[in-house]
Amino acid sequence: MIKAETKIRVRYGETDQMGYVYYGVYAQYYEVGRVEAMRKLGFSYRQVEERGILMPVIDFSISYKKPAFYDDEITVVTYMRERPTGLRLIFDYECFNAVGELLNTGKVTLVLLDKATNKMCKIPDWFQKGFDPFF
Amino acid sequence: MIKAETKIRVRYGETDQMGYVYYGVYAQYYEVGRVEAMRKLGFSYRQVEERGILMPVIDFSISYKKPAFYDDEITVVTYMRERPTGLRLIFDYECFNAVGELLNTGKVTLVLLDKATNKMCKIPDWFQKGFDPFF
Amino acid sequence: MIKAETKIRVRYGETDQMGYVYYGVYAQYYEVGRVEAMRKLGFSYRQVEERGILMPVIDFSISYKKPAFYDDEITVVTYMRERPTGLRLIFDYECFNAVGELLNTGKVTLVLLDKATNKMCKIPDWFQKGFDPFF
Amino acid sequence: MIKAETKIRVRYGETDQMGYVYYGVYAQYYEVGRVEAMRKLGFSYRQVEERGILMPVIDFSISYKKPAFYDDEITVVTYMRERPTGLRLIFDYECFNAVGELLNTGKVTLVLLDKATNKMCKIPDWFQKGFDPFF
Repeated sequence: MIKAETKIRVRYGETDQMGYVYYGVYAQYYEVGRVEAMRKLGFSYRQVEERGILMPVIDFSISYKKPAFYDDEITVVTYMRERPTGLRLIFDYECFNAVGELLNTGKVTLVLLDKATNKMCKIPDWFQKGFDPFF
Repeated sequence: MIKAETKIRVRYGETDQMGYVYYGVYAQYYEVGRVEAMRKLGFSYRQVEERGILMPVIDFSISYKKPAFYDDEITVVTYMRERPTGLRLIFDYECFNAVGELLNTGKVTLVLLDKATNKMCKIPDWFQKGFDPFF
Repeated sequence: MIKAETKIRVRYGETDQMGYVYYGVYAQYYEVGRVEAMRKLGFSYRQVEERGILMPVIDFSISYKKPAFYDDEITVVTYMRERPTGLRLIFDYECFNAVGELLNTGKVTLVLLDKATNKMCKIPDWFQKGFDPFF
Repeated sequence: MIKAETKIRVRYGETDQMGYVYYGVYAQYYEVGRVEAMRKLGFSYRQVEERGILMPVIDFSISYKKPAFYDDEITVVTYMRERPTGLRLIFDYECFNAVGELLNTGKVTLVLLDKATNKMCKIPDWFQKGFDPFF
């Protein structure tokens, strides 16, 4: 399993007039979470792109339990629970506020896209090797 | 059933470096869609808030089929398929590009929150009456 | 002179917990305004990029007079007051709410960048011709 | 003088299809910068709001020298160069990338608004005391 924890401070512009973090903002928080999870593999998302692979999201779901507020420090916990074998990467999420309350849970699925052909592709060997220490 | 169609032009700032509309932006597009769907009930989301009711999202899911690009004109089709009876409003979505390709499908569930008590509440009568012509 | 008027409906996610449109959102509204202003030249910003020219912003200033609120219909008035001669395009802005109150005024300066060389470039002839009917 | 340095990692959703950080995103980065600058006064922006004072931006200007890219670590340097005496707070900014290149400079002016009356107000004594160690 891969598990990564990332702290994010809520920005003023991320709140809405309810005083909550806008529901669409968590897509960015989750993105930050999986970028940090991927760094554990020994390379960055940026480097994956530089090697000619894009990683678009094909599925995103989130269940909101409690709102987050301005200036809160959010902990995004990102999990990859199973070793990816084929075409997809699946990340699970939990967000907590500073007093440990669960704010939301979610799931994001990504595919790999070969920039040169604009077609989906399998996870290449150098990418797969990054998973070895975790599964 | 309630069905509403909304056109949205993709802004430059909504794209990411893949050249796609960022996956988190659709939360805003869906919000615009359900605001237009609600206007059909005879009142606006803004008026609902002015009457003391907030409507936070508790569930959001989206499946991406094809990317949208800068300057594309997106059609967001918003459905309420069943009359809400209790505490929840459920909206289904389909997004299309200008040539009619399905970009994504999704679902958003909202609850009603009484601003005064900060507690969930049932859909009030004046709100329920708005559904009469559709179900 | 080029003058373009664009209507924008304020989205929920664009408000902040003050209940105002977040001050950073107007950068997007101004972008939408100048995209519409450019369409009057006979080509779109998208087509300019497809011809190998990027147009990054090098200066942006805005003075806020009054806030805008959720669901307001904003009118963005975009002006190009002088024919661009060299490397820069200058747009002036006024934003109004639905009752005609001036919300803010601003100015955005863009340069042209040749995608192939990543260097600033002069406005090409086909682009310059677009200005002929206006100055 | 007050001077604060804040590190911000560029998120994927903050880039645009040029591959640059979108020009409107810096409004958020600057906001994060001045929030950190204000913490040096001994209270947070959040606490100011809890005491009944809002701080809307009335002027914002920014000059872009170089673009920032995905995953870059940006340093936002925020300055308050003069002690505020009346109604306004003025923050100056410099943004740098990880190799020390100046990305942009800017200025943000805020006023204080009494939440109860919705009118501009002078900086109260408890707020003014926060400036004592710096000027």
